[in-house]
Amino acid sequence: MTDNPQVYLASVGTELPGEAVTNADLARALGANEEWIEVFIGTRTRHFARDLTTGEVRWSLADLCARAAAEAVRASELDLADIEFVVLGTATPDTLMPATVNHVADQLGLDQVPTFQLQSGCAGAVQALSLGRTLIASGEYRSGLVVGGDVCSKHLDLQRDLTKAAPSDLVNFVLFGDGAGAAVLTDEPSGAGVAVRHVLNRFTGLGREPGQVIEWFGLADRHDDRQALTEDYKAIEEQVPVMAVEILWELLGDLDWSADELDYLLPPQLSGRMTRKIAEQLDVPGATEISCVAETGNNGNALPFLQIERLLEKMTAGQKALAVAVESSKWIKAGFALERI
Amino acid sequence: MTDNPQVYLASVGTELPGEAVTNADLARALGANEEWIEVFIGTRTRHFARDLTTGEVRWSLADLCARAAAEAVRASELDLADIEFVVLGTATPDTLMPATVNHVADQLGLDQVPTFQLQSGCAGAVQALSLGRTLIASGEYRSGLVVGGDVCSKHLDLQRDLTKAAPSDLVNFVLFGDGAGAAVLTDEPSGAGVAVRHVLNRFTGLGREPGQVIEWFGLADRHDDRQALTEDYKAIEEQVPVMAVEILWELLGDLDWSADELDYLLPPQLSGRMTRKIAEQLDVPGATEISCVAETGNNGNALPFLQIERLLEKMTAGQKALAVAVESSKWIKAGFALERI
Repeated sequence: MTDNPQVYLASVGTELPGEAVTNADLARALGANEEWIEVFIGTRTRHFARDLTTGEVRWSLADLCARAAAEAVRASELDLADIEFVVLGTATPDTLMPATVNHVADQLGLDQVPTFQLQSGCAGAVQALSLGRTLIASGEYRSGLVVGGDVCSKHLDLQRDLTKAAPSDLVNFVLFGDGAGAAVLTDEPSGAGVAVRHVLNRFTGLGREPGQVIEWFGLADRHDDRQALTEDYKAIEEQVPVMAVEILWELLGDLDWSADELDYLLPPQLSGRMTRKIAEQLDVPGATEISCVAETGNNGNALPFLQIERLLEKMTAGQKALAVAVESSKWIKAGFALERI
Repeated sequence: MTDNPQVYLASVGTELPGEAVTNADLARALGANEEWIEVFIGTRTRHFARDLTTGEVRWSLADLCARAAAEAVRASELDLADIEFVVLGTATPDTLMPATVNHVADQLGLDQVPTFQLQSGCAGAVQALSLGRTLIASGEYRSGLVVGGDVCSKHLDLQRDLTKAAPSDLVNFVLFGDGAGAAVLTDEPSGAGVAVRHVLNRFTGLGREPGQVIEWFGLADRHDDRQALTEDYKAIEEQVPVMAVEILWELLGDLDWSADELDYLLPPQLSGRMTRKIAEQLDVPGATEISCVAETGNNGNALPFLQIERLLEKMTAGQKALAVAVESSKWIKAGFALERI
């Protein structure tokens, strides 16, 4: 059973700011231990929208998202005038107001359309896909943009000397990155003509301690010394793989697909090492794994779009793909199923 | 022509934290000029989730939203188990992650439902209503919660001495407040059984300078001295009334309602004085005005729910109400039409 009416993904676009920053670059700039990064994190490169040396902001989230969205529109075979809504997911908006999605619309040259911005960690991209799908499936809209991106570097003081940093501190600097992605959804096949068979987005965090907390500071508390980012990596390592397996089997069940029919698996993108482990536990050896995080860095809401981009390069007619995402902030199960027509 | 399928508003709930803070209180605590507030702002009271004297946080946004939502569920004649989604709009989430909506679900005792949090100024409440309506109209869900709230006090250093503050600085302290509201939406009449005839949400800010910018600070820039809140009150005073009139006539046209048939008008809630001016310019003398901002303070995403609460106390079967909201951050047109069955 797939979601009805059918909605299609016409195209994807992505944007990774600046040059790839290697572990050697980070070791030099921050005093980080290169070998430790390779062994314990397994991420090889990431991108930052800020200058690693000066901390200067080179691109805003709006810039990255607008570029990704423009690329998606170009690849979709639609015109800008066909874009009837924009849904954007991020955990790191440029400003609280205006919402970044409205700057993105402005940069694209869009006007007089509904815009929605979702505040979420990595599940936000899937939530955007879910809402975009529902907006079209409702019959109220024919096509629109869904976008996801993050500028995680806003949380990181890139001028710090991490030579003596504890692993729990260092990990945030080497795991995260910046980036954006976007897709055009349509009511009829266009461009890549990939059917969005199902989208899952579900809060499962009742009574569960957050696995990740990210604070923002306003005038009332900007000089507090409390930490901005706190992660319970132990909880993440224990619970994310379990939830990922649950999501996989729930999606397969809802779709009435067997694991054998799956051509591609898009596992949760956390870090090179964690994603490898989770993919093993998902245990769908017949499916080609589509991952990117070891090269792109963990840029939150951009990740599913970066995976879809890599997927579309390989996916042929009749092939099936399933994506699994887990947001460990408050334990959100997310995922989606695609089938190329 | 009204939106189809028909979706209903069963109930509303609201929460204003602590005691009403009067202009005299503000004058005492901050050194503000009481007479200036009355003449130029026209707001008489507001509520803060922080202690005015110590700055201590007494309630989180999640607390306020959960209380408002619980009240809405109670008044709806539905059970908690009937709540199939939560959509929350705010410009001031407690944390970037987890999204506040997930803490609200947790506090309510909800689990295993989709949650969505919209990042927006006051249009967010209308966007939440719009998405909630679409989720139900799509046939995928039967009932759910839409929530709006803000803790504007997070932007304000309430320990400041404003005796010599410039008006542009003082205005933020006296105009804004904290609060939350919520409504239960259903696919069939329940509780108050008010039909949601139409919801409007549209970005119209192409090429227009923001009327309001609210920054948030992360570790990378938390010790910057740049201002968190900047408003172009001149642009707001010029453009909001014009946009409000346009929204009114667009809604009436879409609905094929004449201004004469309108029983209630819910104008944009900015401040006591500005709302009074806009209501005059909207010029629907036959409609009873439903405003609250002079008493509740401008608490952003809570405002439409506070207005709906006051509306439901008066509205009888067959009566029609129209709400207009303008978000001046990037010029979002918003509004909705209700009709009591």
